[in-house]
Amino acid sequence: MKNLFYLFLAVVVISCNMTLESGDGSIVISEDGIEQRTSEYAIVIHGGAGTIKKENMTPELEQQYNEKLTEAVKAGHIILKNGGDAMDAVEASIRIMEDSPLFNSGKGAVFTHDGINSLDASFMDGKTLNAGAVAGVTTVKNPISLARKVMTDSDHVLLSGAGGDAFAKVLQDPNIEIVPNSYFYTENRYQSLQRVLKREAEKTAQNDKKVAQLELEDPFIKDSKYGTVGCVALDKNGNIAAGTSTGGMTNKKYGRIGDSPIIGSGTYANNATCGVSSTGHGEYFIRAQVAYDISALMEYKNLSLEQATEEVIQKKLVNLGGTGGIVALDHLGNVSMEFNTAGMYRATMNDKDELIVGMYKE
Amino acid sequence: MKNLFYLFLAVVVISCNMTLESGDGSIVISEDGIEQRTSEYAIVIHGGAGTIKKENMTPELEQQYNEKLTEAVKAGHIILKNGGDAMDAVEASIRIMEDSPLFNSGKGAVFTHDGINSLDASFMDGKTLNAGAVAGVTTVKNPISLARKVMTDSDHVLLSGAGGDAFAKVLQDPNIEIVPNSYFYTENRYQSLQRVLKREAEKTAQNDKKVAQLELEDPFIKDSKYGTVGCVALDKNGNIAAGTSTGGMTNKKYGRIGDSPIIGSGTYANNATCGVSSTGHGEYFIRAQVAYDISALMEYKNLSLEQATEEVIQKKLVNLGGTGGIVALDHLGNVSMEFNTAGMYRATMNDKDELIVGMYKE
Repeated sequence: MKNLFYLFLAVVVISCNMTLESGDGSIVISEDGIEQRTSEYAIVIHGGAGTIKKENMTPELEQQYNEKLTEAVKAGHIILKNGGDAMDAVEASIRIMEDSPLFNSGKGAVFTHDGINSLDASFMDGKTLNAGAVAGVTTVKNPISLARKVMTDSDHVLLSGAGGDAFAKVLQDPNIEIVPNSYFYTENRYQSLQRVLKREAEKTAQNDKKVAQLELEDPFIKDSKYGTVGCVALDKNGNIAAGTSTGGMTNKKYGRIGDSPIIGSGTYANNATCGVSSTGHGEYFIRAQVAYDISALMEYKNLSLEQATEEVIQKKLVNLGGTGGIVALDHLGNVSMEFNTAGMYRATMNDKDELIVGMYKE
Repeated sequence: MKNLFYLFLAVVVISCNMTLESGDGSIVISEDGIEQRTSEYAIVIHGGAGTIKKENMTPELEQQYNEKLTEAVKAGHIILKNGGDAMDAVEASIRIMEDSPLFNSGKGAVFTHDGINSLDASFMDGKTLNAGAVAGVTTVKNPISLARKVMTDSDHVLLSGAGGDAFAKVLQDPNIEIVPNSYFYTENRYQSLQRVLKREAEKTAQNDKKVAQLELEDPFIKDSKYGTVGCVALDKNGNIAAGTSTGGMTNKKYGRIGDSPIIGSGTYANNATCGVSSTGHGEYFIRAQVAYDISALMEYKNLSLEQATEEVIQKKLVNLGGTGGIVALDHLGNVSMEFNTAGMYRATMNDKDELIVGMYKE
């Protein structure tokens, strides 16, 4: 019943453009002219954007998403409430989504063309502008934790392929659990790949291109490009952290890397401006520099978080032909959940324990 | 003699901050208030930044660098002069540097920890904001041409590892020559790796860290982090293109990917603002979003190319602790070659056939 209540709340509260400002929705200026936070701390998560429509959803599945999004956002929120670090909150929330087969990350990741699961993740600390990321790892249960370790325990930002797995092994950290690739198998995602491969073979047979036509959209679930999880948090000390984790595209080939492990495209955090985690058709998010561009618009053009996210997701990205969305929050605790697809799995909580969970546009 | 003349010219002409504006150095405003180009077309290249000092250089080596930089910049320049496309100019110039063992890209690439050569490149079209890149390919003679093919012949932006090599093979394009990894071997770079490995072993023996201390700086040449080649061109139609190609860091491990194949960090191009190619300590260039940030400062804060490149390379990057440089040009034909290291191999030509070649700071 509690979960159904949250779902009801989500449908009622969230307006069309999906931007929420916590508290009374405006920046408070104190008597001495200093901007005050609308929320002392805040967290926002997404579980992917795409053609998420109520008519395609069963009540049971709706409830499962609702419960898991609530569990994930609360896991980070309690850390922030207790005065913990934004980075710990981001990692905790994302790990819960990675461990759930509902999302295209960790357990539940989509399959590559070669029938394996290959995972990407990135992590950024808005205080130091330090960052870490992995692309194409296949044996790490929680890639978000490995991305954080790349940031703290290596001189590098981005490790790839078997190298990422080797680094994970060397760490010998109980938090970085090594699993066989078969751990990531889910029947659902495997059948998705089979449908896509079938359609690809049909298309390629009709095609005389030298490079085989890559079929990337699952004709059944229609959102094989979009499932990704992410989180942004602001802690009581004013530190912002952001992270993103994904299995990429169903049927991805040729070692394709999307935007999720790319700092500035999939993930960005800067205490001076905002934190952002992206989800969508990654190639467009790279070309449009989505995550950093939101920060740049705030820093250089003095746009609000709401204005900056709307400009990038509804205008610049649309002009390029890109679909997807972001979750973001600024240094004042304002939250944005902006997307140009039919839906985006998302949730947010503020310092008043207010929880919002959403899936659809309206 | 001609080459010595160019070298002399370089030393005389290039001022300390290394920013060159072609023509009379200022933007020309016509009577109707429209900005006019200072050069109808222009090209600028780099061959890496680092501790390049006259006292470490022999006259013979100086001449070799001078000749090769001149050959590379002229190869692109003649294409632009004949009305050709900026993308063709960028590819032609970079291929010449990739084929030369003087630079850390293609033939002459540094060795990874595992004793192979692993190549990264990226390419961007400022007209469409389309982009392509490869990371960690090991069998493609000219990675810059493969990056361009990823842009034009795939739905993706970034392909990695063996997947990039597989894509190259499928193309069956005479312009994408497949070579054994041994093609990239040079004695010089191999000895660099041996020296670095020796120093790493010594350091690791003194160290109790779980993750072995990675030794990345060659104690002899001191610039193992910095060798990379890149090019930016503006053609007569006002189109800007940019590209970057590298062998990465000597002794790189764990599938490390630097900034060179990352759009927005290593390479960026946008007809509305500028094109940029980076060279330096890649991790910092990713965290600082160097290439896109220069464009954002021009677009959002109306900075000139000179102001934007100086802001990013001399202030923002320095504040993070990052070393390296960029070459860039804007839509008006102004050129910038900005670096915060002792030197950067570089050259530029404009529509008056003026050639400048430089290596050192002063």
